[in-house]
Amino acid sequence: MEILVPIDSQKKKPLYEQIYEYIRGEIRCGGLKASDRLPSTRMLAEHLKVSRSTTQMAYDQLLAEGYIEAHPCRGYFVAQMEELTEVEAHIAGEMEMEGVEEAGETGEKPIDFSPRGIDLDSFPFHIWRKLSRNTLVDGNKEFFHSGNPQGEPGFREAIGAYLHSARGVDCTPEQIIIGAGSEYLLMLLSQVLGSSRKIAMENPTYKQAYRVFGSLGYDVCPVEMDDSGMNPRLLERAKADVAYVMPSHQFPTGIVMPVRRRLELLRWASAGEGGQERYLIEDDYDSEFRYKGKPIPALQGMDKKGLVIYLGTFSKAVAPAIRVSYMVLPPVLLKRYQERAGFYASTVSRIDQNILYQFLAQGYFERHLNRMRSIYKAKHDCFLNAARLLEKDFSISGEYAGLHILLTDRRGRTEKELISLARERGVRVYGISSYLIHPVSGGLSSTIVAGYANLSEQDIIQGVKLLAESWKIE
Amino acid sequence: MEILVPIDSQKKKPLYEQIYEYIRGEIRCGGLKASDRLPSTRMLAEHLKVSRSTTQMAYDQLLAEGYIEAHPCRGYFVAQMEELTEVEAHIAGEMEMEGVEEAGETGEKPIDFSPRGIDLDSFPFHIWRKLSRNTLVDGNKEFFHSGNPQGEPGFREAIGAYLHSARGVDCTPEQIIIGAGSEYLLMLLSQVLGSSRKIAMENPTYKQAYRVFGSLGYDVCPVEMDDSGMNPRLLERAKADVAYVMPSHQFPTGIVMPVRRRLELLRWASAGEGGQERYLIEDDYDSEFRYKGKPIPALQGMDKKGLVIYLGTFSKAVAPAIRVSYMVLPPVLLKRYQERAGFYASTVSRIDQNILYQFLAQGYFERHLNRMRSIYKAKHDCFLNAARLLEKDFSISGEYAGLHILLTDRRGRTEKELISLARERGVRVYGISSYLIHPVSGGLSSTIVAGYANLSEQDIIQGVKLLAESWKIE
Repeated sequence: MEILVPIDSQKKKPLYEQIYEYIRGEIRCGGLKASDRLPSTRMLAEHLKVSRSTTQMAYDQLLAEGYIEAHPCRGYFVAQMEELTEVEAHIAGEMEMEGVEEAGETGEKPIDFSPRGIDLDSFPFHIWRKLSRNTLVDGNKEFFHSGNPQGEPGFREAIGAYLHSARGVDCTPEQIIIGAGSEYLLMLLSQVLGSSRKIAMENPTYKQAYRVFGSLGYDVCPVEMDDSGMNPRLLERAKADVAYVMPSHQFPTGIVMPVRRRLELLRWASAGEGGQERYLIEDDYDSEFRYKGKPIPALQGMDKKGLVIYLGTFSKAVAPAIRVSYMVLPPVLLKRYQERAGFYASTVSRIDQNILYQFLAQGYFERHLNRMRSIYKAKHDCFLNAARLLEKDFSISGEYAGLHILLTDRRGRTEKELISLARERGVRVYGISSYLIHPVSGGLSSTIVAGYANLSEQDIIQGVKLLAESWKIE
Repeated sequence: MEILVPIDSQKKKPLYEQIYEYIRGEIRCGGLKASDRLPSTRMLAEHLKVSRSTTQMAYDQLLAEGYIEAHPCRGYFVAQMEELTEVEAHIAGEMEMEGVEEAGETGEKPIDFSPRGIDLDSFPFHIWRKLSRNTLVDGNKEFFHSGNPQGEPGFREAIGAYLHSARGVDCTPEQIIIGAGSEYLLMLLSQVLGSSRKIAMENPTYKQAYRVFGSLGYDVCPVEMDDSGMNPRLLERAKADVAYVMPSHQFPTGIVMPVRRRLELLRWASAGEGGQERYLIEDDYDSEFRYKGKPIPALQGMDKKGLVIYLGTFSKAVAPAIRVSYMVLPPVLLKRYQERAGFYASTVSRIDQNILYQFLAQGYFERHLNRMRSIYKAKHDCFLNAARLLEKDFSISGEYAGLHILLTDRRGRTEKELISLARERGVRVYGISSYLIHPVSGGLSSTIVAGYANLSEQDIIQGVKLLAESWKIE
């Protein structure tokens, strides 16, 4: 088939990018359909009077992003559309994909208050490169052999020391299991806990964990929260034997669980009967970022009876794509893990473990955290300051920690309405409903989750201003 | 009430933290009791001669952690906490140290014919370092954001092209799922297949896969092999609906499944009933290394009905510790994967994916494979040649492929006896029984598995000589 790509050699944008964007646009809007064949790079180059390497670069990009497929000896074809539409649905709905840039309705790049964004502009690439280079010196063969199933002992030692000093977690390195992401660790944990468990979760909650439990076949019951977090009376009534909670900074509500409630939950857990012990899973996903006072210590450190399973991650503190999380098991479960699942090889490469180990051991991690904390605090303060524009109609919550803030419309407009109004002005915000296990009444139905981590202060100010306009705050 | 906080402005610790810690300590040890009223922040500040913001920060922290409560117009009170005494001194104890080194039995390092060893002396460290450095250039931020759950499209494209040309696998990049090791991919697959499955496995087999299926709660049944591999009549009789096989080079027996047997297995799979479809899992773990004739094409390429789930890995071909494997799903299961488990984030870091992608795309992988194939062939030939010393009493099998060879004692001594005799001479060999799901009669009970990949030719010759001596071959 023929493609008439309207390229313009006067434009600042590279030619290959114009070709790439045009074809991508055609595929997205349906002008090019799944299995349609594209002209060869040579024919297209002749037709457009550009060099063949230009058309090849455009096709390589489309290939790399999965818009087209190459079939040996047959040429290039448009990829299956289902996947594309699914990916776009993901972006719109639950932000599974990050960092995807898409033109807004106005043609401008939208200001995206994604709650999953993190700031990578300040990432110490040169240090990572140096540590990576040092790990890969000739003869460092041992990093290419398979390692300890729980993760390298030195690395676990360093994580343990960090957890002890920064989070008040009380554990030995033997209790730590390193894995490629929290979802994987939950899969592994399910083999330790067994499948005949009923799991209580906060509502709203971290939906990925909910999906994992669901897909593993667990009976999951949402338990409503009050201002202190999961309600222990309702928890008792739910007849669950495992409760998954985020005491230091509940996602997405931002609730910090006070000591009393923590003790109530520990009491609940310690009342498990011999046949069916009870456990608390503490997901401490972003406790590094607190902008007022000291970090809230982990629930795990208060547990004297081995009832808390502690989950942490480097996804927020370093980067989502490095895929390193860790789990601290109480002694009884550690023993069971070793019996039932100790044979699973580690899912994190030893090279990556060593890079991250050096990052911790040489003090880079602490410096990086301090730096990011002050960067995020500045963005947080900037957001809160700008959000005065919204105060008349919106109540603000979940501030002073984490990477997002909640906005609840006192006029009771639905999140759908608010999202769509914002989108007309080129601003993306997200509703809290995607974190709800089941609908709740009250303010949550009018609540917006706004992340600021991946935006510049300028964009935050401009974005909040556009929100105020689109939401017609007088 | 009055609080005498012993603050010390000479200390490095911030003043607010000293106040916070002091009050927290008093609450914990019972010096301050539930409902006790604290002095106002203003009064405490005057009393301690610090600024009011300092006392406010201390109180805010205590509030945030739930030790105290604020009552509007009345002030701050110690919160109710029944079990607080248990929390006392929650941070205690020193980290235990790991890394116990074990001394060998003799002073000498044994010659270890481990079937799991691979040769890393020829690993192209400089190329890996270069690709790693290029991936980590400043501003390559996207590699630190989370990526596609199935793995990066470009990387999957490259794997698909390799599988097509080298293994005869017939698939699109969309069918490929990248994961941190085959064990993880089997866990993921279990979510696609559902748990009410009966899985047939060869006996002996790859024990890790057997353990994974077992720990996932599957009903696993061993099916005996003849010289062509899994016996289809016994498979039919086993009433399984999934069969896990290694047609190109069965582990550990080294049996290559002939075309007729492959067709019989495909026929078995296609006879699945609507309610319970049947699938074959093809684990193609080391097919890269074949030293005679052409590589045996994958079973997957013969399957026209979408009945084969293909598993491959870079563990043998590159290195065990990089933790990258892949799975090719037939279309029906791909759809089910997307519905049931598509939300699981990828377990492999995008940085690692890109390094390996470049390794493939820039032709290094092919060169590395060719080089390793010739290195392993030389070791293989060296072993076979040396093994003439054993021929009188041992039959040799599993040669011309993979990284190990089987030795079966015609005199019928048990593997335990053979292992222990070898060990006395400082040589490690391994018995086949550790790969058996259940004991079998016949030669297997006298069979040794000897890997040569991680030994020098000199060590191979010396090792086999010592074996001949220890096993008293005349």
